[in-house]
Amino acid sequence: MASTIAMAVDEQAVAVLVSEVEQAWNTHDMRRFAACFTEDADFVNVRGWWWRGRDEIERKHALFHETIFRDSRMRLERAATREVGSGVVVAHVKWSMVGHEVGGPEQTAEPRVGIWSWVIRERDGRSEIVASHNTDTMEIPPVHPLAARPS
Amino acid sequence: MASTIAMAVDEQAVAVLVSEVEQAWNTHDMRRFAACFTEDADFVNVRGWWWRGRDEIERKHALFHETIFRDSRMRLERAATREVGSGVVVAHVKWSMVGHEVGGPEQTAEPRVGIWSWVIRERDGRSEIVASHNTDTMEIPPVHPLAARPS
Repeated sequence: MASTIAMAVDEQAVAVLVSEVEQAWNTHDMRRFAACFTEDADFVNVRGWWWRGRDEIERKHALFHETIFRDSRMRLERAATREVGSGVVVAHVKWSMVGHEVGGPEQTAEPRVGIWSWVIRERDGRSEIVASHNTDTMEIPPVHPLAARPS
Repeated sequence: MASTIAMAVDEQAVAVLVSEVEQAWNTHDMRRFAACFTEDADFVNVRGWWWRGRDEIERKHALFHETIFRDSRMRLERAATREVGSGVVVAHVKWSMVGHEVGGPEQTAEPRVGIWSWVIRERDGRSEIVASHNTDTMEIPPVHPLAARPS
């Protein structure tokens, strides 16, 4: 059953979306970036700030791309995609970023990596992100339950 | 169109799920906690670590609830729910936590707040989380584009 559902994902449409988000980011074109989201999309950023709607997604990112992300470059890698309902796909996208100013949960200008969950609606061969949640992937701290028992 | 779709959400089923997750957390019963997720669920935690499947979700959380979350208490608040496809709901759940040891992206034992995105599958009146992504909500840093222009 699970594999039957997985087969239904339009991998090509998701690949196009990943490429479009990456190119929009790297050309700092936030109108183009926001166009990858539905008009009423939810966006939770890496510091847990929740933005609602394509307009706010564009406005907040435009401010960041005039400042801390002005010279940033991001690479995206589609790590997993699966259909969770008719025409609804969840994608997990890994990213890496360089060239940014101090930012993120760790307030660093060092290279950052993270994982981004997208809920995607597929309509007529076009994919749009309806909900997005992003997090920097951090190291296991020296004092942490998983540091003693990395499994 | 959007409001028609929104009407289809089984708010009661989502409320039951939120309550179940909260009670499972606060009784530190990670078998019960994991049962709120589908067998193949994705879980991205607040440090950007991606766990896959109900078993791993239970195992990682059990380790944390034997250690840093042993005395933690969490309150959940359903902030928004909407149907994004037939039988697929996205919920945004705000949380606050006290009583934990040092943890989270900020490595703190101070009270924490955050926002948790759930992709929920509704089947026969039962709701299960198929993808989960969680982030601590952090303050705007003193030096940040939004600090100068909080909008």
